[in-house]
This record gives sequence, C-alpha cells and structure tokens, in this order.
Amino acid sequence: MTTHQTATTIDHFDTDIFKRQESKVQSYARSFPCVFERAENATLYDQDGHAYLDFLAGAGSLNYGHNHPVLRDALLRYISSDGITHGLDFHTRAKGDFLEAMRSHIFEPRGLDYVIQFTGPTGANAVEAALKIARKVKQRSNIVSFTNGFHGVTLGSLAATGNEHHRGGAGLSLTGVTAMPYDGYMGDDVDTIDYFEKVLGDASSGLDHPAAVVLETVQGEGGLNVASIEWLQRLQRLCHRNDMLLIIDDIQAGCGRTGSFFSFEAANIQPDIVTLSKSLSGFGLPFAVTLIKRDLDIWEPGEHNGTFRGNNHAFVTATAAIETFWRDEEFARSVQDKAALLTQCLRAIAEKHGKDLFRVKGRGLMQGIDCGSGKLASAVSRAAFARGMIIETSGPDGEVVKCLCPLTISHEDLRRGLKILDDSVAA
Amino acid sequence: MTTHQTATTIDHFDTDIFKRQESKVQSYARSFPCVFERAENATLYDQDGHAYLDFLAGAGSLNYGHNHPVLRDALLRYISSDGITHGLDFHTRAKGDFLEAMRSHIFEPRGLDYVIQFTGPTGANAVEAALKIARKVKQRSNIVSFTNGFHGVTLGSLAATGNEHHRGGAGLSLTGVTAMPYDGYMGDDVDTIDYFEKVLGDASSGLDHPAAVVLETVQGEGGLNVASIEWLQRLQRLCHRNDMLLIIDDIQAGCGRTGSFFSFEAANIQPDIVTLSKSLSGFGLPFAVTLIKRDLDIWEPGEHNGTFRGNNHAFVTATAAIETFWRDEEFARSVQDKAALLTQCLRAIAEKHGKDLFRVKGRGLMQGIDCGSGKLASAVSRAAFARGMIIETSGPDGEVVKCLCPLTISHEDLRRGLKILDDSVAA
Amino acid sequence: MTTHQTATTIDHFDTDIFKRQESKVQSYARSFPCVFERAENATLYDQDGHAYLDFLAGAGSLNYGHNHPVLRDALLRYISSDGITHGLDFHTRAKGDFLEAMRSHIFEPRGLDYVIQFTGPTGANAVEAALKIARKVKQRSNIVSFTNGFHGVTLGSLAATGNEHHRGGAGLSLTGVTAMPYDGYMGDDVDTIDYFEKVLGDASSGLDHPAAVVLETVQGEGGLNVASIEWLQRLQRLCHRNDMLLIIDDIQAGCGRTGSFFSFEAANIQPDIVTLSKSLSGFGLPFAVTLIKRDLDIWEPGEHNGTFRGNNHAFVTATAAIETFWRDEEFARSVQDKAALLTQCLRAIAEKHGKDLFRVKGRGLMQGIDCGSGKLASAVSRAAFARGMIIETSGPDGEVVKCLCPLTISHEDLRRGLKILDDSVAA
Amino acid sequence: MTTHQTATTIDHFDTDIFKRQESKVQSYARSFPCVFERAENATLYDQDGHAYLDFLAGAGSLNYGHNHPVLRDALLRYISSDGITHGLDFHTRAKGDFLEAMRSHIFEPRGLDYVIQFTGPTGANAVEAALKIARKVKQRSNIVSFTNGFHGVTLGSLAATGNEHHRGGAGLSLTGVTAMPYDGYMGDDVDTIDYFEKVLGDASSGLDHPAAVVLETVQGEGGLNVASIEWLQRLQRLCHRNDMLLIIDDIQAGCGRTGSFFSFEAANIQPDIVTLSKSLSGFGLPFAVTLIKRDLDIWEPGEHNGTFRGNNHAFVTATAAIETFWRDEEFARSVQDKAALLTQCLRAIAEKHGKDLFRVKGRGLMQGIDCGSGKLASAVSRAAFARGMIIETSGPDGEVVKCLCPLTISHEDLRRGLKILDDSVAA
Repeated sequence: MTTHQTATTIDHFDTDIFKRQESKVQSYARSFPCVFERAENATLYDQDGHAYLDFLAGAGSLNYGHNHPVLRDALLRYISSDGITHGLDFHTRAKGDFLEAMRSHIFEPRGLDYVIQFTGPTGANAVEAALKIARKVKQRSNIVSFTNGFHGVTLGSLAATGNEHHRGGAGLSLTGVTAMPYDGYMGDDVDTIDYFEKVLGDASSGLDHPAAVVLETVQGEGGLNVASIEWLQRLQRLCHRNDMLLIIDDIQAGCGRTGSFFSFEAANIQPDIVTLSKSLSGFGLPFAVTLIKRDLDIWEPGEHNGTFRGNNHAFVTATAAIETFWRDEEFARSVQDKAALLTQCLRAIAEKHGKDLFRVKGRGLMQGIDCGSGKLASAVSRAAFARGMIIETSGPDGEVVKCLCPLTISHEDLRRGLKILDDSVAA
Repeated sequence: MTTHQTATTIDHFDTDIFKRQESKVQSYARSFPCVFERAENATLYDQDGHAYLDFLAGAGSLNYGHNHPVLRDALLRYISSDGITHGLDFHTRAKGDFLEAMRSHIFEPRGLDYVIQFTGPTGANAVEAALKIARKVKQRSNIVSFTNGFHGVTLGSLAATGNEHHRGGAGLSLTGVTAMPYDGYMGDDVDTIDYFEKVLGDASSGLDHPAAVVLETVQGEGGLNVASIEWLQRLQRLCHRNDMLLIIDDIQAGCGRTGSFFSFEAANIQPDIVTLSKSLSGFGLPFAVTLIKRDLDIWEPGEHNGTFRGNNHAFVTATAAIETFWRDEEFARSVQDKAALLTQCLRAIAEKHGKDLFRVKGRGLMQGIDCGSGKLASAVSRAAFARGMIIETSGPDGEVVKCLCPLTISHEDLRRGLKILDDSVAA
Repeated sequence: MTTHQTATTIDHFDTDIFKRQESKVQSYARSFPCVFERAENATLYDQDGHAYLDFLAGAGSLNYGHNHPVLRDALLRYISSDGITHGLDFHTRAKGDFLEAMRSHIFEPRGLDYVIQFTGPTGANAVEAALKIARKVKQRSNIVSFTNGFHGVTLGSLAATGNEHHRGGAGLSLTGVTAMPYDGYMGDDVDTIDYFEKVLGDASSGLDHPAAVVLETVQGEGGLNVASIEWLQRLQRLCHRNDMLLIIDDIQAGCGRTGSFFSFEAANIQPDIVTLSKSLSGFGLPFAVTLIKRDLDIWEPGEHNGTFRGNNHAFVTATAAIETFWRDEEFARSVQDKAALLTQCLRAIAEKHGKDLFRVKGRGLMQGIDCGSGKLASAVSRAAFARGMIIETSGPDGEVVKCLCPLTISHEDLRRGLKILDDSVAA
Repeated sequence: MTTHQTATTIDHFDTDIFKRQESKVQSYARSFPCVFERAENATLYDQDGHAYLDFLAGAGSLNYGHNHPVLRDALLRYISSDGITHGLDFHTRAKGDFLEAMRSHIFEPRGLDYVIQFTGPTGANAVEAALKIARKVKQRSNIVSFTNGFHGVTLGSLAATGNEHHRGGAGLSLTGVTAMPYDGYMGDDVDTIDYFEKVLGDASSGLDHPAAVVLETVQGEGGLNVASIEWLQRLQRLCHRNDMLLIIDDIQAGCGRTGSFFSFEAANIQPDIVTLSKSLSGFGLPFAVTLIKRDLDIWEPGEHNGTFRGNNHAFVTATAAIETFWRDEEFARSVQDKAALLTQCLRAIAEKHGKDLFRVKGRGLMQGIDCGSGKLASAVSRAAFARGMIIETSGPDGEVVKCLCPLTISHEDLRRGLKILDDSVAA
C-alpha cells in the first residue's frame, strides 16, 4: 500500500482532530467511523488497511468507481503538463474537449439539442440555475416540485426539496415552489397526473400557474420512488399543454445509473432543462451543469455565475469518462445486466425474510429494500458495516436500504455485497 | 510546450464548439476571447503559446499563482497513490491533515477557536450555511448586509448581494436580508455605524431585529471599498450590544490577499462566523468552509449538506499551501511589501493621468483604480489585454480596474503589469 | 316614499358620474346597471322606482333583509340619542350589550367558550387576525387552506384564497399558505383527509408543519362546495392529533345562512378560531370579529389593531339582531324550512332542464345550480335580471348560479324568485 | 341625558363583560377605563355622565367632532327613508352624490384628476389596494416606505409599517417593502433625499427598483414627524426621474387635519395615488377610498374587492361633511387659526417646563410634545385623564403626547384642553 507523503511518518492517524475541529453537522462520518485513506473501484481502505465494499459510491458520485485508472491517468497527465486548473468561464482546451465529447457522444446520438451552462460545481447550484432560467423564460415565479423530491439545500433549491429536516434548517419561509404528489404517492387508485391537471385547470385551486415542474425520474434521497414511463410521458404532455417547462433533475439518476446516460431516455421524453452533477466528472470531482434547450438560453452574460464554474480537472476526467464509457452501447448494457441481477437478488432477499415486511424499490442500479421503518433499515446498514460494507438508507424516515454501488463493480463484488446484505437483513 | 493527451492530434483547437455548445451566460470569456491551455504562477498561455500576464488570478482564487509546483506535486503524489478523491463527509487522512494544519498554523497562532464546516465547494454555499446557522442560533430570520456587498448568486446568498444584475436574475422576491450603508457609503460626513445604530434602536424604523450582519472587509466585486479598522471594531461592538452575530465573508479578501491570512486581523476583531473559499485550496480547486465559533455550532447532523463537501484533492493542496505559506510571517510580509509597491505605483498612475479622474482604492494586493465610469475602466481593461495582460473591472458600474494578481507574483512581473496598466490608462 | 335630502330636487340621477369618477375595479355594478335608491327586506328599488327581488343579499351580508325595521329603529334611537358612533376599542355600552348578547344567546346555549376580538370591520381583516394569532400561538408560519377557498384579498388573507384572478392582483408572491384538496375535490373515490394525513405524516412531502388549517364549511365564492359532517369531524381530529389549530371562516356561511347560527353546529365540532362578518351586524353595516378559544388569546395589547374596530352602530344592530332572531329556535327552524323548499325547487328545475347539465349544490339557504359553464350561468343571471331579480354566480369559472336570498324572505317572494330562476334557465 | 333603549333598565353597566368576553388585544380601553355612552363634538360622556374632553378624536377619525348635528340629521333622514344601507359596489344615489361632491368640491378646485376606488372600509385595505395597483402598473414588486411610517396591520400594509410591535405580530417574514430614512431621520446634516437618490442610482446598493414610494406627510403614529415642503417636492421629482409612483397615505393627515383637505396641498405636489379613510365619512363610520390618477386605473373588474366597499351610510355623511366644510375656504382658515394657537400654546408649555426636555412637533391640528421618553409621555396622558381629558401618545417609544382634537373644537375647549395639558406636564 502506497501512502501519500504528509502521512508517511504517522502510523495511525489521531482521530481526535475530527472531534476537536469539525462541525457537528457531519452525518455519514457518524455511521461509518473510520479514517479512510485510499480507494479503488468499489473498495475503500481505511488507514489500517481494512477494506470496505462501497455500496454508497459517493452518494451516486462514483458511478465509474473510485479512481478509475483511465480517468486518473488523464488527470495526472493534465496536471503534470500544467494544464489550466481554475479557469473561471474562460475558453480552455479542456472545456472545449468536454463540450465536443458531450456533443458527439451524448447529444447527437440521442437527438438532443441542448446548450451547456457551467454552474458552480454543486448539484444545488445547477438546480438554482435551472429554476432561475425557467422563471426568466416564463416570467412566472412558481415552480412545481414533487413529494419526496430532493434538489439540494441552498435556499432556492431547498424550496423544491421536500425533506423537513433540511427545510427546517432554512430559518426562513421557503417560497416560490408548490409540492404536488409524485407518481404513486396517493396509492395505486389515484392518478396523480389527473390531480395535477385538475388543480392546474381550476381557476381557484390556489395553485399559481407554474413556470416549470422539476423532478427526479427516480427519487434518490426520497426513497427510490420510480416514476413510470407513462406518467413521465403524460407529465411532459401536461407541461406542453399548460405552457410549463419540464426540468429533469438527473443529478443522482443520470450518468448511467438507471442503465442509460439520462434516466429519462426510457420514457423517450425531451426535458426543456436537465441538471447533471455527481458522477458527471466520473472521478468524484466537483462538477455540475445545467442543460438548456437552445431557444430557452436567454441568459444575460454573467447573470448566474460562480468562481469555480471552470473546474478544468473535472472537464478532463469527464471527457475521459464519456470517451471510455459512452462511445458505444456496451457499458449501458453491462449496467442493465447488473441491474437485472440486482433486482433478482433483492427480490430473493425480500421473499426470504418476509414479503410483507420488505419491498424492493427503484430502477437500474438504483434499487433497494424498503424495510418499513428507519430503525430496521438503519440496523441493516449497521450490520452490513460490521461485515465490511458501506451502504446507506434513504426515504422520508430512512426506511429504504439503498444499493448504490459503482456501475463498474465486478460481478463478484456485486454478488459478495448482496450476500452481505442478505446476512445483514437476517441479523 | 507539453499538451495533454486528448488534444495531441489537433494543432489549433476549433473554437466553434464554444459558440455552438456553451450557454450565453458566459462572461469573462467575452472579454478575453482566447482558448487557454496551460499556466504557471502569474502567466496564462493560450493554445498558440501566447503568454498573458494574469492580474485576475481566478477572481482571487489563485493567490499562490497557477499550478504552484509544491502544491501540484503533493496533488500528483496523492492521486498516484489512489488517495480518496470523493469522500462525502467521511473522515479521511487528507481531511485530518487539513484540520490539523488549520488548527496549528491558522487558528492557534491567532487565538481563534472555530470549528470547521465543510460546505458544498462554492463560496455561495459557505455563505448559505453561514446565514442558516446564524438564523438558527438567534431564531430570527432577518440578516443585515451592506451596500455593494457580493456574497454569491444562489437564492439565499443572492438576497445578501447588492448587485441588481444578479438580483434581477432571481425571478423571485429576495427576502430575509436588509441592506445598510457600508463604511463611507454616504460620504465622509455621515457615520454609517451611527445610522445603523439609530435604526436598530428605533422601535419603528422598519428594520426587523437581525440575527446577524454579513460583510466583506474589502468589497471585491463592489468596487474595492474598504471598511476602516475603527468602523469594523465599532460594528463588532454594535453586534455584541444588540445580540447579533458578526459574519465576515472572507472569500475574496481572505487567504492572504490583504497581507494577513484573514482580512480582519488588522482590526483585531473575532467574527462569530467566517466564510472562506476561492484561494483556500491554494490550487484553484473548488473548496469552501464556514468557520463557526465553537459554542454556536448547533447544527443537527446533515442539516446542511452537499455531495462535494469532501473534495479531498482540495484538502491536499490546501494543507500544502498552509504548510508552505503560513508556517511563519515571511509570506505575509512579502505580500505587504508588494502591496506597498502597488499602492505607490497606482497612485503614480492616477496622478499622472489626472487626479480628479482617477482614484486609488482598496487594501493589500486588492487595489485598483476608480476610473469614474465603467466605459473608461472597460477601455483600460481592453487596452491591457491588447498588451498581453488580463485585468478585470469591478464596482456597481464596473468603474474600478482591479489589480488582483497572484500574491506570489515576482517583483518583475508586478512592475511589468503596472507598466502595462500605465500604458493602458494612457491609451 | 321619503327620499333623502340631497336628492329631492333631482328627478333622475345622472349616471355619468360613475363612469367619470369611479375606478374600473367595480364588478357587480357591471352586471346590474341600475342606480339603486332604497330597499326593504328582499326588495331593492332603483331611482325610477323599479323593484328587484334580491337573491344576492349583499353577498350574504343581509341575512335579515334590507333595513329590517326592528334593527333600523334601534339604530335610529341610538343615533338620535348621540350614542357613541366611533369608539376605537373603548368600552361602550353598545359594545357591552353586544358582548352580553353573544354570551347569553350564542355562546352559552352552544357550550362555546370564546373571547371576541374586534378587528377592522371587514372579513379580510378578521381572517388576517385569525392567521396571525394562530401563527403566534403555534410559532409556525405555514397555514393550510383548501382548494376553492375564499378568505379575502388583503395580502395575508389572499394567500389563503384560491382564486387566481384575485391572487394575480397581488403583484407579489403569496407566501405562508399551502392549499390542500377540499372534501370531494378529487372525486368520490379519493379521501382528501387521507391525503392530507399522508402528507402531514411524511417527513419529506414538502409540507411545512402547519400552525392551522382555515376553511369554510360551505365554500361561498368557490362554488357552493359542501364539506360533509364526517369530513369536518375527521379534519378536527386530524388537527388535534397534529397540533394544528382549526379555523372556521364563517363569514359567509355563518349567522344563520345554513340553518344554525354557526355553520359548523351540525358537525358538532368546536373550532379553535372562528371568523364572523357579513351578516353579523344584521343591517349590512361593516363589522367583523374573530372568536378565539379563551386559552389561545395571547395577544399583546394593540398587537393587531384598526381604527374602525369600534363601529358602535354595528354593535347596536348586531345586538338587536341577536335578540330578535336568536333568542329561541324559531328563526333557525324557519330557515331550515325554506332551505328544504329551496332544495326541492332547485332539484325540480335541474331535472326539468337537464339532469346531466345542471346539478344542485350547497346547504341551507346557500344553494345553487351548477350550470357546467360560466357562460351559461352568466346567461341565467342576465335573464333573471331582465325578469327583475338579482342573482349572482360563483365558482372557479362562475359556473354556479347562487341563491343567496335574505333568510327573512317571505315564502311568496322565495317562490316567486324560484319561478323567475326556472324561467331564466329555460331562456 | 338620553339613554338608548337596551340600557334603560340598567343604572350602571356591569363592566365584567369586557373582562370576560373581549380579547386581551384591546389597548385604548386599558388607558381610559370607562364605559362610554354618548358624545358631542369634543366631549365624551361615560355611563355615569362624567364628561371627558376628547383630544384623541377617534385617532383622527372625528375631525368634525362626535355626532355632528348636520351629518347626524342627514344620516337619520337617510335611514328613515330606507335608503340602501349595504350596496356592494352597486351604483346608488348616495354613492353618486358622494362622487359628485368629491368631484366638484375637492378635485376640481384643486386641479386634481383622480378616479375613486371604494375599497374595504379600513385604511389598511385602502393601502393594500394602493400597493397592489402600483405593483400592477409598474410590474415591479418592491415598494419604498419610510422609517416610522404607519400604514396598517394587514399583511400587505404591515410590510410598509415600521413599528416592530406590529411587525412582530405577523408571524411571517414581511416582504416587498424597503424602508428608507424619512425627512430629518438622520439629523439635520444628512439629506435623506440625497441618500435615497444615491441608493437608487447605485446598481449594487441592494435596493430592488421600487414600483412606488408610500408615505405620510406628517407621521401620525410615528411621532408627528413632518416632511418639509421642499423634501416632498424633491421626493416627487425623484419619483418622476426614476419611474416610481408617489403614494401619499393621507389617512390620518388628510380631511383637513393639517389645515387643507389634503395634507400635501401646501407642497403643491400631485401624488399618483392617495389613500383616505378615518375622517372621510365625517361621522366616524368605516370608510376608505384609494384615489388613482385616471391613467393608472388599470384594474380588472373585481380584482380587488370587499363586501363592505359600499357602506352607503358613510357616503351620506361624507357627502354632508364635504358640502358643509369644503364648499369654501372658511373651515380651512379656522383650522389654520386653531393650529397657530396650538403651536403657540404648546411652545409655551415646552418652554415653561424645560426646553431641553420637551420639544413641539407636528403640523396643523396634528401637533404634540415630545417628552423624550415614553414613560414621561405616558404619565402626562394619565395625568390628563385624571383631569378629564383623553389624550394619547405616539412615536416609536410612545414619547410624543399627541393633540388630535376635533377640528371643530371650540376655542374655549381648545384652551381648556391646553390648560389641562399644561397642568398634566407640571404633574
């Protein structure tokens, strides 16, 4: 094991520093109290050399695993050659390469015509930009989001986020967003598109005409709720009929997580605006973009800006990732295969340990088991950690154990992880 | 000249891709229409090998210059050893090293007792976190910001930003912040602390009792307005007397820019909350933290979060930067020396070309020339670019030409840049 | 007929003055373009002596008819004796008498224990006060209102009003209120209390925990939608379980309109807060109160005020009205009888002219015919006016012809009015 | 003494009913704990026949005194003839007469061209309408109000009100209004119009471009602060230059209080919008209007409405008041004479009891003595009450004893009141 320089003289890192110096706001670190040091693909190593199977993958930011060698080497070459690191919104070769890769490998094959806005390198910032441009285009302030949606915690994106824990942190009334029920939210008998349509068409429903709707096709933090193909298609038609923009927040579900680059490809819809972040750089580097249909790009120069919107390291790894994984269909097919395996194994686990208690949810490599309660799900996560696996929960009460392994995980690791999960549910 | 791999076969990069694929929101790229490729300290090179002297320095994000070799090599070693790249809020050795460096080299020598919150890696996110925790601590929603302040463009931070171009982009009423006049805003005869105090003490002034005030000690985007030492001290006393927290946004003025690590050291005040970003990583990598006095750290776990709050590459370079530049007083002294030179030269330029027309503003290596109008300042910037220098304007009408060179600039480059500026003002 | 002084010398009033001098905001005056002069019970007379049967009754403000002689004579005596007219919130005999009448004839017989807040003399003001005290008691800002609810057009009450025509007039984002579906809003198959309960219990539904819910038991402006007894009872239980106050806005449905003094008596619920206005003075004089359960009355002195909260003329007529109509059960029974007749006749009209087209809605003497479209309903209203009857429409598209005659209407006038309605529907 | 009927059998009214049944929100009733029964001009009588000199006059609603016989008789005749009482926004003879009286006696002689909007009969409602139409006309949401301004307590008008006691009652963030310093607020040396102009012209001051400014020319509740003629004229010019509407809230200072019908006549300005209420009916009846320059009257029918916008009793007394007091200059001159006497006497009192301690403030019959502290002012008010006079305080800390007697007060009563005030200050 190679260790980095500043640590060479320390055998075991003193962990007191985290207690003494880091804010109480930390959360994942409480569930997984190790000091991590290095990582490869689906494996994290702590400072004592213990290996952990990673079924969290940077909360969906490491679709191609930790430190993928192709991406790593491209980055090393770039840094070694003193390539531009911080470029504001300057034109750089690294940015040009990224734009070209997006054009030729992502947009063209899918018949999409977006311009790319480089926002501050966080998902929340991309969402803020998306809501701003939608409001600017439509000259209306209201936006519709959906129950259990999660779009970030800055004030503008937080207004669209359902989670009360995060909303409560605002210290201000959150305005400009109305929550509608997501697909299936009101049970199988109630058609939530019908409800939305009724409220829209009713001149005294209290819903101010929205500029746009914003949603995830699979709700990552909200508990792996899946919008059906038909529901997405009807939503798009509803938007068109009612002069509302359709914004897909593909920050967690995009970049291949559901088996295609965009999560909405299966529904054959064309959102007006798309946000991407998390796995976009492919290497876990901060990066976020807002894709905007060409004719909606009415931004004034610098109207939305941000110091780190030109993180060229991320451009380099993102380009390498696109060229490595999205030149052809092979990678997508491999994800679909693993997803099928995941579905099968999770169902088996659910059946084995109680069909009434456990329910499989999600789509692609974004599936999990609804344990009915946050307490139970949390116990499963702890049991898995004790067995050398990192896996987290999601949902309003943290009731869903969420498998979010790298898409590049080996079949062997995937099976091993599912075995650990099986044992953990048993325990 | 070394070029990075993906571009090896291209002699001259086709710039059409930026027109075709990037949003119209770009701004700096319009002023400096090159395709940049690599950079060293204060010099940027475009794809044709032309060199440009950089007096913008990533809008203050490159205080230690482009690609500083010590930081670069630390980063290369870290990446080569497969160190954790993306760590959510996990404890990692790289984070522990950064915490320790902050503790021993920054906090302890200055008698400061802050905990560090790792926010999303943008300044706006650090400001959003600062406003949230202030509102949470004081259970009041109003915040006071100051005229010409700039704190970011996400909805929460934008409310504290004065700039109407950016505010107008919100598409929503911005709430929860009241703007007060900054030091000197109402001319030399009016004491703006007196005004603030009167409004605070007046039960029908219309000012809702603020949870906190947020300000820059030198307003970077607002036109290099400087708050005097006495004004800052009186503001701190006013905050204490009126149960308001004092938040210093040190994103642009911090990390050495004014001649000390924090810009407020000269005033000998201890803000309750400090935001840092821009040059914090030292290498231009996305990174932002919110420093919170220990007893105010009442966050619930995960109450404010963000996927990229564990950008370990930035931890590595930030640690290297602290250990390189802030172990002793030497670097700070060198910055002060250059600042004195800058003042002297800028004054000479102003005198030479018209004392009535031009006015020197700012503090430390954050000074510039107020040209009276945005048109004139913009012409100076263009003339400088034609002479191979990148320098930008700031202020409400872009009327201030702002020298924001790397703090590590050689005396030779500094003098050369000031000569170009002199010529550009003449032209 | 006695005419008032300023008009004695004019035979026919010049109507140009209204065009020249009154704002275009006028609405009812457009539908009924007469110059009215005097009125008795259910009859209005224009300046030419033409009589109109009044099935609008001051939009529900004239439950005891125009100029009821008992109330009129009490008022004349009071004015003649130079009784206090304008009393701010002074204790006056007239106010004391009103308080005593409310206590002995309204609260005691119904086992209710409210204190009375005299607000500014408009329904909107009473609603503003109700929302304020609810927010103050619960220290939470969100309020739930219901689809098609109408609670006034001042900014606070407007936020709770569904009507987009009125909401659009705000010129500001309306905040602090979330609209939920009313009873029956989502069709017969969907239980809207279940939906509300789900959203309340879901920690990431996006609904900020409400301080209170505010609703009408019969939605006057919203189209005579009726909340069922069971729905109201379940809503009260839901409020109790979730620590939310229940506010009944009884401004239009109260004061006997549904056959009991309060509209919620049939449901046997005890709202925490009740707003009354419209027919409260009994004579059409501006008057509004907010009834607050004794232990919730945590107002600071003068925290909500208003110059005309002591309209003593209204106290005098209100007292006379209570003593005349609410000493015993007789009046309530007569209203119930007329309501039964109304139901019967409206159903007959609907059946006769097309069961599929027309639908009877409402409760008590607050019933009407849903004509399916605003155009048709408006035509019925115009046809009725041509036949000497004033009757208005309500509902999101004005699709419901609303019978809102005085409760004191004679059986003869009621039958005559329904005959006109029958003819108008036919036409 | 004539008593009204319902009280004939009661010798002394039991005051427990107020304690038992009325909300704690009552305020004036706490300062003047009597049960009032009747009133004439400047004298109130309690139920025991004790007389009190009224220097409060319904907080400015009784400019023509209590129960003026000409107005009373017009009202009695109208009621006796069964004139329309409640008329929604119907055209009625009483309304036509009022419109004609306003046209011929108020607008024409002053060269003003307003249309009249009948709002809900409270000042707050007239202000809400004024802010709405201003936002609608300018399509901007921000409004500028001034320190110590008072415009009502409904949510929209409250946002423009400075008083923190009332603002705190909102339970919500108040939005859409920015407070600027009023004339003289920052001392004699600071020109607050200059400050406003600077902030308006500064593209990063944080002031969103206002649709309008709203102000009182003399701040009634804010402590009798007076805007100078020149300041008002400069403000009007500033509004014109910056495309902002000028709204004068003349609710307390209008209807003759300052010696002319409108308080702004002395400044020879023509506001775009004017609100009137309080003394508009002349009799203390609830009444409010918003005057709108003809070309700004872009209301849609019913866009702002209110059940009691047709309080015909108020139209009758308002018409009689205009015809009685505003046909010629005589009444205005008499007010000016009394105002001169008031100034003279108040100055004498201030001189006598301590020039340093006491300061005379205000204009017309809207003057008072600033006692430096609310405690002292309150003691003066109590001492006056013990001497048979009702006089209230205003200002941020209630530090100003405010003489607000009827304009129709006899010279004898005025002198007597000032003698009581003199004695009370002494005590």
